[in-house]
This record gives sequence, C-alpha cells and structure tokens, in this order.
Amino acid sequence: MKKPLILITNDDGISAKGIKSLIEVALDFGDVLIVAPDKPQSGMGHAITVNHPLRLDKSVLFDNAYTCTGTPVDCVKLAIYEILHRKPDLLLSGINHGENTSTNVLYSGTMSAAVEGAMENIPSIGFSLADFDANADFSGAQLIARQLIEKILQKNFPPHVCLNVNIPKVKSGDIKGVKVCRQAHAFWEDRFDKRLDQFGKPYYWLTGEFSNHDKGEDTDLFALSKGYASIVPTQFDMTAYSTMAEFNNWEL
Amino acid sequence: MKKPLILITNDDGISAKGIKSLIEVALDFGDVLIVAPDKPQSGMGHAITVNHPLRLDKSVLFDNAYTCTGTPVDCVKLAIYEILHRKPDLLLSGINHGENTSTNVLYSGTMSAAVEGAMENIPSIGFSLADFDANADFSGAQLIARQLIEKILQKNFPPHVCLNVNIPKVKSGDIKGVKVCRQAHAFWEDRFDKRLDQFGKPYYWLTGEFSNHDKGEDTDLFALSKGYASIVPTQFDMTAYSTMAEFNNWEL
Repeated sequence: MKKPLILITNDDGISAKGIKSLIEVALDFGDVLIVAPDKPQSGMGHAITVNHPLRLDKSVLFDNAYTCTGTPVDCVKLAIYEILHRKPDLLLSGINHGENTSTNVLYSGTMSAAVEGAMENIPSIGFSLADFDANADFSGAQLIARQLIEKILQKNFPPHVCLNVNIPKVKSGDIKGVKVCRQAHAFWEDRFDKRLDQFGKPYYWLTGEFSNHDKGEDTDLFALSKGYASIVPTQFDMTAYSTMAEFNNWEL
Repeated sequence: MKKPLILITNDDGISAKGIKSLIEVALDFGDVLIVAPDKPQSGMGHAITVNHPLRLDKSVLFDNAYTCTGTPVDCVKLAIYEILHRKPDLLLSGINHGENTSTNVLYSGTMSAAVEGAMENIPSIGFSLADFDANADFSGAQLIARQLIEKILQKNFPPHVCLNVNIPKVKSGDIKGVKVCRQAHAFWEDRFDKRLDQFGKPYYWLTGEFSNHDKGEDTDLFALSKGYASIVPTQFDMTAYSTMAEFNNWEL
C-alpha cells in the first residue's frame, strides 16, 4: 500500500518544539513534507501575503522541510501549488503552543492553515496544546495526534471540513478522553498596554483576558476544563443562515 | 436625539478613495471616528498584531481620524479599547477596492474588521466594490451604503452578526437592487509567479484565478453577476454542526 503524503505546517515557526513533536508522530504514518514559517506567525489568522513577494528556503532542521517568509496559509498554498503540484493526503498543523479554543479559531494561524486545507478539500487537523511554554510537554498531545491520524487514515473524512483539536495541559496519562464539541461562544476582553519609547512616543501591546460566559457543556472550553481533548469540526461557510429571513423582511 | 457614533475602518489604508467615499456617507448619519491602517493591509484576514507593538497616530486627512500600524482587526480593537473606551453604535468597513464575495470573506481584512465588530456585538457592515481600480467610481456603492445605514439605524440588528455587502461594477443608476444571499462555495485556483532577484535567488508572488463551480442562484456571486448588490449575513461560529454526529460515530 502506498504511504500517505502528509503536509505539516504551524504558526509558531519551524524551530518550535510543537512542530517537531507533530513531525515525530507523522513519520510513523507516511511521507512527510514540512513547510513552515521561518518566524513566529501567531495571531496571523487567515492572512495571505499579497503585497510582498514570498521566499521559500530548504530547511536543514528536518528531511524534506522548507521555511517560508509568509503566513501559515501561505505555507499551505506554496506546498500544494509550488512544491507538490498535487494535494497531500492529510494536512496537520501545529502542535500549537497555547490553546485555540472558541473564537480563537479566527485569530489562529495554526487553525487557519487547517481551514485552508478544508477549502482545498484535504482532510486537515489543527492541534493546539493548552500550554504556551516553549518547552511544554507535548507527550499527551502526541498521544491524541497518533490516535486521530490512525482513525482518519481508516475513515472517509467529510468534505470541506477540518478539525480543531485542543489538548489540556495535563500529564499524558491524565487526559480523560476525547470529546466532539462546538466552538464556545466566548471572547477576549482586550486591553492595550501603553508604553513610551525612548523618544517619549507611545506604543501599544495588545493584551487582555479571555472570558467565557458560555454555560454550555457541549463546548470545547468545557471539555478542556474537564481534562478532555476537544475536537471541533470546523467549516468555512460563515453565512448566518438563521438571520436571512429577518434581513429579507427588511425590504432592502 | 443623540447622534449615533460610527466607527470606520478599512484594509486598503487611510489614503484609499474607498474609505473617503464611506466617510462622506457616514457623516450624514452620525459622529464618525476613523481608525484605519497606515498602509495597504489587503489579504490580512483576521490577523492581529501580537509579536510587535502597535503605533497609533492622529491623521490630518479627516477630522477625528487615526492611523494604526497594524491590521484592520487591530484598528477595531484600538478604537474600542484605547480611543473610545466604549462600543460604537455602528461599525463600517471599506469601501474595499475589489470584491469580497464567497470564501474571500476569510482572506479579507475589510470583512474581518466587520466580523470583529460582530464579536463585539456591534452592528457591523463590510462594503466592497467589484472594482480594484484606485480611482474606481464609488457612487453606486455610496448609494447602497446610504440605504443600508438608514435602515440599520431604524431596525434591531440581530446579535453577533455582520453584513458582507458587495456592489457590482456598474453605473450607480444601473444597480438592479439588493439581494440577501449565502456565501458562494467557490475557491481560488492558486498559482505562484516565480521570479529571480538580482542575485538569481527565487521569490514568489501569490496569484491565481477565482473559480466558481457553485451553480446556486442564491449566492453572492450569482447576485453580483446579475447586477445586484449582494448582502451575506455573516457570523463567526465555524462549527461544522452537520458533521458532529459523524465524528461522534468514529468512537474516538
């Protein structure tokens, strides 16, 4: 049987521990191509690079690996259209240092790479560990990734969907299991940290608190808080179908 | 009656003709605050700036206007949390030079600013004209914007939703009307234009063709092709609810 071709990217950049952890798992299942940003690209969402040219360089960190000067979505596009000239059998993004639950799916470069995979109709998974530490323990996340990849390679993946997988910050053996969830309806309460530079001119760091008022027990945030890995099947049709009748009544 | 407070941003940058056209319309309805990128930010999607500090400067181009060094979503966050310290009554983004139909909602900085407004539960609209020209004729788009703003200020806007409005490239009097639509299921067929720099080293420009295989007559692309302005009510819950049962059957 032909080995599956697995494309791996992330948003923390090619030298992050998270992508190394994911590559280790993926190599047990297929041939792996890595195209990852050459620097951290957290918070880049679904950004693509249209006003600057992109560079693509061979990386010495792994076999069959490239770095790109652009965003995670740029990495996916370059991999498919410039390197492979075909679609991979599976796209894996991550493992992100820090969770991408709830509405963070919109800000997350990790998840946007997976959403881009869904647009290309490639079975795609974004993995995130609820631990921002550069030296985080990825063994639990690796366990979940292994289980999921094994299952996906046996099953028919629904078209134009990807998975948003978040793994709790607990010891590998303490993960309670896996729950299929919806995206929690929760938001950032933003704050800007205003500082003055050496000339007395202000600059701002975006910061804030993530705040969950969603009481549902079927959300990714709930599952994670109970020690489960959460899986949110994720799609890219943003139409608010339930409001269409109301806007039609407006007689625009 | 107190005048509504209207926040305006865009992704083409503060000096674009499109934002000027939108400001002209908005000033007839309320007090206007402008916070826009200091340079083009097309294709930035829902990106936020977390790895660099942001600058915010007063602009001389309009009254009550600021430029920001970040993305359209950064502009919305800075406006609410650093300048206003309250939510505006209405958020308008655009008018974009070039359409943001279909899956372009994901790549579009213009629409991501509106989606951020929806997350903040502010009635929000992104406007895009199907004409990339820097000197495009915005009179038709201004007409549609005027009609919509007037209506929205009379109505109760559904919570956590925004509108993706695209205006066809036709003379103002030739717009056939307005249609409430769903996001067309259509995609880019990407291509990279590979060139060599002065050292013989390659660089890549992202390019391609947008390709519509969605035969539906209820899509934004269909409405626009028939000379209508399209309105897609847009939300940010990306959960693929219809696939949850299937993934639950996988016994993960």
